[in-house]
Amino acid sequence: MDHRNPANRQFAAWLSDPSFAAAEIARSIGYGAVVLDIEHGAFDLADLERFVPFLKSLDMEVIAKVLGPERGPIQQALDFGADAVVIPHVENLAHARTVTAFAKFPPLGDRSFAGGRTSSYGGFTDAWVTQQDTQTRCYPMIEDAGALEDVEAILSLDTVDGVFVGPSDLSLRRGRGAYSRTEDDFADLERVAKAAAAAGKAWVLPAWSIEEKEFALRNGADQLALTMQHGALLAGFSAPYEQARTLAESVLSQASA
Amino acid sequence: MDHRNPANRQFAAWLSDPSFAAAEIARSIGYGAVVLDIEHGAFDLADLERFVPFLKSLDMEVIAKVLGPERGPIQQALDFGADAVVIPHVENLAHARTVTAFAKFPPLGDRSFAGGRTSSYGGFTDAWVTQQDTQTRCYPMIEDAGALEDVEAILSLDTVDGVFVGPSDLSLRRGRGAYSRTEDDFADLERVAKAAAAAGKAWVLPAWSIEEKEFALRNGADQLALTMQHGALLAGFSAPYEQARTLAESVLSQASA
Amino acid sequence: MDHRNPANRQFAAWLSDPSFAAAEIARSIGYGAVVLDIEHGAFDLADLERFVPFLKSLDMEVIAKVLGPERGPIQQALDFGADAVVIPHVENLAHARTVTAFAKFPPLGDRSFAGGRTSSYGGFTDAWVTQQDTQTRCYPMIEDAGALEDVEAILSLDTVDGVFVGPSDLSLRRGRGAYSRTEDDFADLERVAKAAAAAGKAWVLPAWSIEEKEFALRNGADQLALTMQHGALLAGFSAPYEQARTLAESVLSQASA
Amino acid sequence: MDHRNPANRQFAAWLSDPSFAAAEIARSIGYGAVVLDIEHGAFDLADLERFVPFLKSLDMEVIAKVLGPERGPIQQALDFGADAVVIPHVENLAHARTVTAFAKFPPLGDRSFAGGRTSSYGGFTDAWVTQQDTQTRCYPMIEDAGALEDVEAILSLDTVDGVFVGPSDLSLRRGRGAYSRTEDDFADLERVAKAAAAAGKAWVLPAWSIEEKEFALRNGADQLALTMQHGALLAGFSAPYEQARTLAESVLSQASA
Amino acid sequence: MDHRNPANRQFAAWLSDPSFAAAEIARSIGYGAVVLDIEHGAFDLADLERFVPFLKSLDMEVIAKVLGPERGPIQQALDFGADAVVIPHVENLAHARTVTAFAKFPPLGDRSFAGGRTSSYGGFTDAWVTQQDTQTRCYPMIEDAGALEDVEAILSLDTVDGVFVGPSDLSLRRGRGAYSRTEDDFADLERVAKAAAAAGKAWVLPAWSIEEKEFALRNGADQLALTMQHGALLAGFSAPYEQARTLAESVLSQASA
Amino acid sequence: MDHRNPANRQFAAWLSDPSFAAAEIARSIGYGAVVLDIEHGAFDLADLERFVPFLKSLDMEVIAKVLGPERGPIQQALDFGADAVVIPHVENLAHARTVTAFAKFPPLGDRSFAGGRTSSYGGFTDAWVTQQDTQTRCYPMIEDAGALEDVEAILSLDTVDGVFVGPSDLSLRRGRGAYSRTEDDFADLERVAKAAAAAGKAWVLPAWSIEEKEFALRNGADQLALTMQHGALLAGFSAPYEQARTLAESVLSQASA
Repeated sequence: MDHRNPANRQFAAWLSDPSFAAAEIARSIGYGAVVLDIEHGAFDLADLERFVPFLKSLDMEVIAKVLGPERGPIQQALDFGADAVVIPHVENLAHARTVTAFAKFPPLGDRSFAGGRTSSYGGFTDAWVTQQDTQTRCYPMIEDAGALEDVEAILSLDTVDGVFVGPSDLSLRRGRGAYSRTEDDFADLERVAKAAAAAGKAWVLPAWSIEEKEFALRNGADQLALTMQHGALLAGFSAPYEQARTLAESVLSQASA
Repeated sequence: MDHRNPANRQFAAWLSDPSFAAAEIARSIGYGAVVLDIEHGAFDLADLERFVPFLKSLDMEVIAKVLGPERGPIQQALDFGADAVVIPHVENLAHARTVTAFAKFPPLGDRSFAGGRTSSYGGFTDAWVTQQDTQTRCYPMIEDAGALEDVEAILSLDTVDGVFVGPSDLSLRRGRGAYSRTEDDFADLERVAKAAAAAGKAWVLPAWSIEEKEFALRNGADQLALTMQHGALLAGFSAPYEQARTLAESVLSQASA
Repeated sequence: MDHRNPANRQFAAWLSDPSFAAAEIARSIGYGAVVLDIEHGAFDLADLERFVPFLKSLDMEVIAKVLGPERGPIQQALDFGADAVVIPHVENLAHARTVTAFAKFPPLGDRSFAGGRTSSYGGFTDAWVTQQDTQTRCYPMIEDAGALEDVEAILSLDTVDGVFVGPSDLSLRRGRGAYSRTEDDFADLERVAKAAAAAGKAWVLPAWSIEEKEFALRNGADQLALTMQHGALLAGFSAPYEQARTLAESVLSQASA
Repeated sequence: MDHRNPANRQFAAWLSDPSFAAAEIARSIGYGAVVLDIEHGAFDLADLERFVPFLKSLDMEVIAKVLGPERGPIQQALDFGADAVVIPHVENLAHARTVTAFAKFPPLGDRSFAGGRTSSYGGFTDAWVTQQDTQTRCYPMIEDAGALEDVEAILSLDTVDGVFVGPSDLSLRRGRGAYSRTEDDFADLERVAKAAAAAGKAWVLPAWSIEEKEFALRNGADQLALTMQHGALLAGFSAPYEQARTLAESVLSQASA
Repeated sequence: MDHRNPANRQFAAWLSDPSFAAAEIARSIGYGAVVLDIEHGAFDLADLERFVPFLKSLDMEVIAKVLGPERGPIQQALDFGADAVVIPHVENLAHARTVTAFAKFPPLGDRSFAGGRTSSYGGFTDAWVTQQDTQTRCYPMIEDAGALEDVEAILSLDTVDGVFVGPSDLSLRRGRGAYSRTEDDFADLERVAKAAAAAGKAWVLPAWSIEEKEFALRNGADQLALTMQHGALLAGFSAPYEQARTLAESVLSQASA
Repeated sequence: MDHRNPANRQFAAWLSDPSFAAAEIARSIGYGAVVLDIEHGAFDLADLERFVPFLKSLDMEVIAKVLGPERGPIQQALDFGADAVVIPHVENLAHARTVTAFAKFPPLGDRSFAGGRTSSYGGFTDAWVTQQDTQTRCYPMIEDAGALEDVEAILSLDTVDGVFVGPSDLSLRRGRGAYSRTEDDFADLERVAKAAAAAGKAWVLPAWSIEEKEFALRNGADQLALTMQHGALLAGFSAPYEQARTLAESVLSQASA
């Protein structure tokens, strides 16, 4: 497949399963990054092991939102070659310190070495350790009230390269019920954006609506997830259905006229 | 998942892989049928064995376009519970007679019995044989020049319940090159529609464009495939990307103003 | 497949792998529920994502016994559409309070929102949150000595809709060695049954033997798992083997007579 | 798993999917062979490649009923290590001669060499060719009227080691409708048995009922398939359901008394 | 993974399963092509659909040796994006004419159009048809005696871009028994090489031994498969085992000295 | 496949994916054990459920290095039939006490009972519990500085049958950076070896280099992993590539001479 449009790493597609076709389609449009929703999606290990290098070979950044704030899922995403790990349900600074450590090698953190893809299926050197720690990114999620409270301190951790916001869970956990893009929601986002700017680190936002997209762009988000794979499918299946239904009514009314 | 819209069997989604989410999404919109492109897609057996009954449990008709005009793929689709088999690359009347026979039991045809899903995992009776032959449909494709020449005779076969048109291959094989929705293409479609009407049998069309949709509706097509899964994804991924790109330019121009 | 017998939600089949045929067979008999033994069975994510909606489409309740008392597996089962999650190895009241929270949204608990199947692949509202919390059930297991000690208090938690007993592990952990259906075992079951009745909540029992079945029925168990998929297979393979072996001996003895 | 009972190669379990547990369960009972219903079941290639050597490692003979009378499926079953290939829908002597050749190497037949499992992942010798041709068995099915007419001649082919009867399809194709174990059915079976005895070759029967089992044993069948995996599951799930239903009624009537 | 060595398309690795790691390892060494042994290996459709674009993204040419001389497998390999299809068991010129046609679109051949990966998930044009016919290659195998007899004529077909030799099957079918690299074997190879040179088309050889490698290089083979994945594994597992065994004996003898 | 060489349980192959062919190849050479790197490899559950019994049927010991020091992965490996579980990232004695308990049944530990493969798909007895606790082995890893400090105490736990060293992580965590086989590394290994000898328990080493192999053999390691699957593939693919490259240069230079 030709990829006529250059890859724009600022815009990410949000994928819920390891569809190679979905990746190619997104890439052909210009998407230069993907968020893999390993937390809520259906990514088995053998699929992930294959999907990550494929995405990278398409020149797409792989942002892996892992199953949970634990060593295993963080390590696997990095072993398979992800560019960034997004760690959900980080509760506060202390929690962030512990779990983001799994994404960086000692002495910086506590990641475990695997002699596989990332080390070209061989051994390793100190230079390689430094390179891995530098080039792969670790983003704790800001979706718990405690994490928002500590966002500045979390962003100051050496093991943290930026933060990834989860607006739906944040709304629920900040006592606002289901996420409905209120002023208070945007105030929270603004706090995150400012903290990231102050720290000189990245922040990333799933931005389904136009107002979220605009907010993210205006507030210096490093990357935006623009739409979910399933949302795209819903939109793409709906339009021709509506078209056909309208046509059918028109044909019918002409026939009965 | 709630399925708020009733299932409309006239409108089919064209699926290229066994995505349960894609099926649920299409069904929620109102699609009441699917075309499984087993010929060109990626449907492994174990996936197909699970996808077909799931689709039926969603009240969607399963129209299985099988790998080729051979006993094996025809039989497997029916064994797994498909409502209709679409047989590609039927060359002419004689070929149609041979290969559509694999979709009906003796003495009508030459289908093989399997004591599985369709017979409730048990034995069978003469009544069951009749029911299967009546309720499952066999559609040879009209996509070879020879099949178009014989379309009336093909439609008169006892083993044939209707026909399914393949406009792209038909255009190539009728010497018109890549399919571009010319008058000659529509003339071929019209011949098929008339033959089906005369035979009192169904005809089905993949109708991506509005003109094909309108033609199919006006000419009594029993079912229309409205869009491909991958086409839907392309449309659904493109719109938010364009939106974001435009926004980004606007934000940028304001910033530099 | 026709489903001649109505679905009886009181009787569950215990499944160890995502066999669609096993589900259809159980459903055709009348089973109206399944226990998925995700803890000890072989359910990969992509399989689970497909099996759960299929079971529901067959009108079977899906009772997902998840891998362990952790956020990830609880969340995934609910994301994929399970009716109930069964949480193994809950140690006591405090532990129950923490881990059952993962099954209910804030402010009741700490479940994470996923914009997928359960929310029709779209956004969500407060009403939807309430509906999810009400309609999906959370059952901590009573299989640790500490959990039995606290069973009444556990049943009083707002995040708990009932309990699920694990008699084998309970016997081991109550110092009785391998489970052998002793009086003491039934005394433990009785304590659970009474606590559930007092709380007006459900209790569920794997009831392989006739005495366990009878006990469960007499003591108001909401649901019973009647047999394991592998046990059913063992029984179903044994009978014809014994029949054939006997026949073979008889044929042999006649031949040599 | 211990395998307490010795493997009896005369009795085969009929498997419709590659369940390792089903194989272990059958083996533990004493089954010493399996029929893999690749024709109507759900055996993908990667699964088959793993299932066949596993079955052999359990000391079970692998009788692979392949998808159809074609080179590809015959070759794959033998490449993966099957002991015997069963070829469905052989139409007559000429057809048998052509398709059974795919199971034997030149000059005897026309099988293709693969440097994989069967040749210990290396090259090959003339002795190995002889050994393969001798130790693997080729069984055309007798399920078409034409094949029954030619059964004696088919059995005389050098590429044929025996025959496998398909009673359901044979009944349909001999004009008797759905298979119902009539006298005429058994007369056909008897013809096959006599032809095999005369040729000094094997015949194999799926023998679900007691009368078929007895017939096969009395008439020297080399191997019998005793029950289908799905039939075993149906029986094994039904018994505890009936037990529980009866118990529930009894408990209910006592309660209301 | 870094790919330090440039890709050399003349040297191919022979793969028997869709291992992404095996591909990356081969690529890192310098292999610039792979032969996928779909005929004898274990490539399911969904795996193939993902493996082919991954290989291409690594800058490796994908040479797909398909299951057999039939439309289905040829079409699928091309649909998924293979650079070349290798068609086994071509019997002679007439057979070659029929089956190689499946690899080229009308009017040149009889390939079927699929609106998927190769056409960027959209429609097509006449220019695209020409490009596909030109850029994808079709190689009938020379492994039947009849095909060798007709090799010059086969190479003159418009639908043929070169030939691929199968020395093992050719030896068996030319009456020389198991392939042992005799003079007669090399004479056959020479005939193929000369015919290809005369036609100005490619020939490709699996060249496991040094003599075959040298022959291929001296006789202008366009590409050589250098070793099989399983052979590489056998060699790579054997060396450290022998090393350890020798060491163990030495340690033991010192200990007992 | 014939297994000509006897299985030597002292020498293990290190596998990163569930390749049945890799297992057969290793076994044919003489390897009598495998280390499954579930922690860093790609072993999905359904694959693991099938791979473990296959390996055992080949007479290979299955040493399962599980995902992490948690109940779930430890339990699953034992449920599927592994001979030994290797638990990574054990931090110290207290941690070892907690997590190794998941590998032994009460009252010794806290393993959970599953009525599956290990109990022949049926119930259990006290004798079976004892047998499981005795015959399956539990090896905490020594790869954290704290675990090395406590190695003697860890080895004295009743739930511990030996230890497994992770030299790469140990080097990083002991402040020596990337593992480079220094004197200090060997001093650590020696401490482990002595502690194991003193405890009369096993120690196991991944020993890629000749010096590690010799060290392990001289210091009484119970088992050695000799090479990784991917390392073997790298070696096995490299040799023929180098051979061909050299040949090609030689042919070229002769041609131009």
